[in-house]
Amino acid sequence: MTNRPETPLLDQVKVPADMKRLSDAELVRLADELRAETISAVSETGGHLGAGLGVVELTVALHAVFDAPKDRIIWDVSHQCYPHKILTGRRDRIRTLRTKGGLSGFTKRSESPYDPFGAAHSSTSISAALGFAVARDLGGAPEHGLGDAIAVIGDGAMSAGMAYEAMNNAGHLKKRLIVILNDNEMSIAPPVGAMSAYLSKLYAGAPFQELKAAAKGAVSFLPPPLREGAHRAKEMLKHMTVGGTLFEELGFSYLGPIDGHDMEQLLAVLRTVKSRATGPILIHAITKKGKGYAPAEEASDKGHATAKFDMVTGKQAKAKSNAPSYTSVFANALLDHAAKDSRICAVTAAMPDGTGLSKFMERYASRCFDVGIAEQHAVTFAAGLAAGGLRPFCALYSTFLQRGYDQVVHDVAIQRLPVRFAIDRAGLVGADGSTHAGSFDVAFLANLPGFVVMAASDEAELIRMVATAAAHDSGPIAFRFPRGEGVGVEMPNDVKPLEIGKGRMIQEGKGVAILSFGTRLQEVMLACEALQARGITPTVADARFAKPLDRDLILRLAETHDALITVEEGAVGGFGSHVAQLLGDEGVFDHGLKYRSMVLPDIFIDQASPKDMYDVAGMNAEHIEAKVLNVMGVDVLPARAESRN
Amino acid sequence: MTNRPETPLLDQVKVPADMKRLSDAELVRLADELRAETISAVSETGGHLGAGLGVVELTVALHAVFDAPKDRIIWDVSHQCYPHKILTGRRDRIRTLRTKGGLSGFTKRSESPYDPFGAAHSSTSISAALGFAVARDLGGAPEHGLGDAIAVIGDGAMSAGMAYEAMNNAGHLKKRLIVILNDNEMSIAPPVGAMSAYLSKLYAGAPFQELKAAAKGAVSFLPPPLREGAHRAKEMLKHMTVGGTLFEELGFSYLGPIDGHDMEQLLAVLRTVKSRATGPILIHAITKKGKGYAPAEEASDKGHATAKFDMVTGKQAKAKSNAPSYTSVFANALLDHAAKDSRICAVTAAMPDGTGLSKFMERYASRCFDVGIAEQHAVTFAAGLAAGGLRPFCALYSTFLQRGYDQVVHDVAIQRLPVRFAIDRAGLVGADGSTHAGSFDVAFLANLPGFVVMAASDEAELIRMVATAAAHDSGPIAFRFPRGEGVGVEMPNDVKPLEIGKGRMIQEGKGVAILSFGTRLQEVMLACEALQARGITPTVADARFAKPLDRDLILRLAETHDALITVEEGAVGGFGSHVAQLLGDEGVFDHGLKYRSMVLPDIFIDQASPKDMYDVAGMNAEHIEAKVLNVMGVDVLPARAESRN
Repeated sequence: MTNRPETPLLDQVKVPADMKRLSDAELVRLADELRAETISAVSETGGHLGAGLGVVELTVALHAVFDAPKDRIIWDVSHQCYPHKILTGRRDRIRTLRTKGGLSGFTKRSESPYDPFGAAHSSTSISAALGFAVARDLGGAPEHGLGDAIAVIGDGAMSAGMAYEAMNNAGHLKKRLIVILNDNEMSIAPPVGAMSAYLSKLYAGAPFQELKAAAKGAVSFLPPPLREGAHRAKEMLKHMTVGGTLFEELGFSYLGPIDGHDMEQLLAVLRTVKSRATGPILIHAITKKGKGYAPAEEASDKGHATAKFDMVTGKQAKAKSNAPSYTSVFANALLDHAAKDSRICAVTAAMPDGTGLSKFMERYASRCFDVGIAEQHAVTFAAGLAAGGLRPFCALYSTFLQRGYDQVVHDVAIQRLPVRFAIDRAGLVGADGSTHAGSFDVAFLANLPGFVVMAASDEAELIRMVATAAAHDSGPIAFRFPRGEGVGVEMPNDVKPLEIGKGRMIQEGKGVAILSFGTRLQEVMLACEALQARGITPTVADARFAKPLDRDLILRLAETHDALITVEEGAVGGFGSHVAQLLGDEGVFDHGLKYRSMVLPDIFIDQASPKDMYDVAGMNAEHIEAKVLNVMGVDVLPARAESRN
Repeated sequence: MTNRPETPLLDQVKVPADMKRLSDAELVRLADELRAETISAVSETGGHLGAGLGVVELTVALHAVFDAPKDRIIWDVSHQCYPHKILTGRRDRIRTLRTKGGLSGFTKRSESPYDPFGAAHSSTSISAALGFAVARDLGGAPEHGLGDAIAVIGDGAMSAGMAYEAMNNAGHLKKRLIVILNDNEMSIAPPVGAMSAYLSKLYAGAPFQELKAAAKGAVSFLPPPLREGAHRAKEMLKHMTVGGTLFEELGFSYLGPIDGHDMEQLLAVLRTVKSRATGPILIHAITKKGKGYAPAEEASDKGHATAKFDMVTGKQAKAKSNAPSYTSVFANALLDHAAKDSRICAVTAAMPDGTGLSKFMERYASRCFDVGIAEQHAVTFAAGLAAGGLRPFCALYSTFLQRGYDQVVHDVAIQRLPVRFAIDRAGLVGADGSTHAGSFDVAFLANLPGFVVMAASDEAELIRMVATAAAHDSGPIAFRFPRGEGVGVEMPNDVKPLEIGKGRMIQEGKGVAILSFGTRLQEVMLACEALQARGITPTVADARFAKPLDRDLILRLAETHDALITVEEGAVGGFGSHVAQLLGDEGVFDHGLKYRSMVLPDIFIDQASPKDMYDVAGMNAEHIEAKVLNVMGVDVLPARAESRN
């Protein structure tokens, strides 16, 4: 407990309403305490630090001025929500962040009424807030009163088209709506794109000093609000606007830029907006990611995500690494191919580090494209590159590929363009929880005509699949791999492309055949070890391809075994479903086959370690072992954590 | 042939290179002939008329100034591409548009080298063009030369986020790139949103007269290009710019607005741009949808899509209607519920007519939202409305729902919000071809935890499903229905919500059970009639729900029959896959079941009538009949049009 800061004011705040008693000077001190508490908590739990530290003052000011939960504060992406959670009745659990059974690392409707709209993917907040604003004006939820709808969105998130779509619609509908642009000139990586340059220009044109004076002016104008103040406050707001034409052209009033760490200014501006705003307004606040904690401020990623750390030194407790991460294996393999084939280029959507492409960017700057948080464009841009004769690798997390799904269908698959999709974070991902699970990609890709869909069972396989993708010029191809470390297998030297649509035998056994797709193969082998003790030796194969299927292998396994079990890190509709379709078409079920398909269960699984999440999913070695025994008539199948459907 | 216009100049143009011989005055006449030929062709074929007529001059000017296919002209959405097809070697087949074996109604890479990037969904062109520009600058396709990349995009398409994502990236990369904003103040419906208002403002601020003079000035500056012309042309361009700050702030040079029907102006501007442009440039051309054909100009949709028509009167040949369309049945049913429940509201993405919501918009203007072509926002906005206490119906075509997939997962499903998805154009859609097929929605929705997924087997069922959705407050629900007319069944009066997850028996038979999901039920019944003649009476059930499955019904059918056949208008991974998963889990296959799943085949099917497309798919009555006979050991299964995988 020596780690815990002194927080006399924060101790009095159980819910935001408690802040109404505090003076503005006390709110400044409260922010300091909140910052210290946030650092202390994340030092114990790990998690997203920099983003939260950047909005400490904003969080305090918002809760001091507005009345949550009647007023809806919607945090975009919401990895900056820890200070908000501390102020909204969750301080007692803040040191359980991102752990099994603990607080989510993101806002979550089921967790608190102060989280009106959950998030984890970027750029949804303006759309959601507009929905609340319209619902309010239509009297949708009278039980909650007629509160304000406030979106807090980062500058990085403004590169996503859906933020623009929402602003375009909001400017048209003209409802009262407050958007706070939290401009820290960082998303996860430094933001890219013309919008980012534009925001910097706005910022550069407006020194804070003048604004501070203007904001102080605002305060003096405010009371009494009902005399001639309205007109004059409006004039004052006009004078605060030194740029922002772009937002104004989209129908928003633009206010800023203001210093997002100056409590006095924040309070003045938010109070003015609260009392005066009619249509949509955008407040441009300049903040500093990692603010107030030197190790974060000085880090290149501004303390974006951190392991547990020492509060004094900022030194992170790094887990000992046994094997290279799948991400780095992919990235290094791609570099090798890029050296040999100048047509190879790479596309990332604001994740150069997360996808491992930062090395590629260093080495081949002209062939690597960070398009910002813009997956729709990323996919079609890659399609254009491919149509223009290049061979793009589009590296995305499985869950974010969902953002570009129509583009995958319409621009890549229908045109059979040789875009190579490197799908990271496939399957369950751990602390980021259900919003980041890569559960659906096999189902939504493998039914696209002409697509090749692979999953790596270990890091050596991943290298082979990168080679296979690099050599596949006749159409689209995708390979998926999980978050985290490989299994430590020896790396092959002379890597040849795989034969498209051919799996591999892992072990010959009898009775039961297990056909694995992806890294569950490791769990399958553990299950086999345990079964060995009972004298049971299943046959094991690694499918490698969900599409095209290895028809010969599958039919041979079905023919020569009593039971066939497929295993995959994905939802129903994917690999197992394609196998079942084949078996049905071929009449294999006609005369009986004990066929089981182990897929992710029909629930969204909350954050925990990947191992624990796969326990909930019923997809670890013991569950595979039990499934084998069960299909052999030995009923020891453990129940899944929740029933299905 | 009396219908055919005189086209002496057009007759000389086999490919765009032939236009290089023509004088500017002849190009004006060529445009007139091209317009007449377009009207004549579409009068015979039906199809998209207004959009093409609006770009006749632009099409001629582009091909006169630029050098396709070395220069890549990318038509956004591409329903305006008929004049382009006529000029690019496809005039001899232009009267086969949108028919089986004929020309596609859209650009298509496989159809012509003059179609460098196919389209049919909106707003992809800037991303694709940027890909070509980058590939060119990296030397990606030397065999095609180092041509220009030109995107022609409508103002309606500018409401989509991906257009903004692409501009944001293009402004950042600073490659030479030409975007022509074809502003006709119409997408399919009048465009909505702040961007549209902004464009109108630009247009209002700039009378053409001055611009015409300026453009004429441009011509005089041009030759000789290498003297002091460069500087002066640049100055001239600057003066033509009377607005467009928004685009300039995104890093584009803005040029316009210009009169998109004034050939002299178009040629001058395009020539200047061709010789002078360095970075990304946006040319704002004002055009008139339906231009030059009075019946189109006067129509409310400006002749957007038309049946075959009489060239003189413009009167369309309307097919006799036997039953109301599914779309109108949905729309009317929704109106009934909206009258009873004020929480019900409706969201469309630029398709008020296509989705039938225009009536809703008339009756309940404040509760109906056309958000523009912006499916990502549409879905999350609906989620916000639901979280705010309303009960939104989000009406989208199946193929366009793909644009909002991540939002369905992240904002609706994970939060279990009561958004109701009315999915129109499910299954194969006919003349619009593969880009508009609604093939994947069941696969990508039914594996989302907590979702309810229904398909209507006829229009009476659709009414029941609208009632079911209207009553379902505990989470998301979707119902799908096809394009076109219902089957003419009697409409129920007192409609009750269906029991969630319960199918219905259609007929009791023996031996073979057919479990149908969606409107293939009609074909199933036709197949049963034919089988009756052979003394075979299959059991038939209508599943109604792909999720949750009617477990009892399915297991009972499996238990009491030798064979079970599922039929659905969707790709593998959907309904049949969920049924197979259940049968596997329950051990039904262990002792043998002739299980077959009839799904859309693994090919993208080209345009034809829906009936012909389902023939290619092998999913009409005769195929179902054959499947039943086959599973009974009578092998008369007709081959599908193409082999699978």
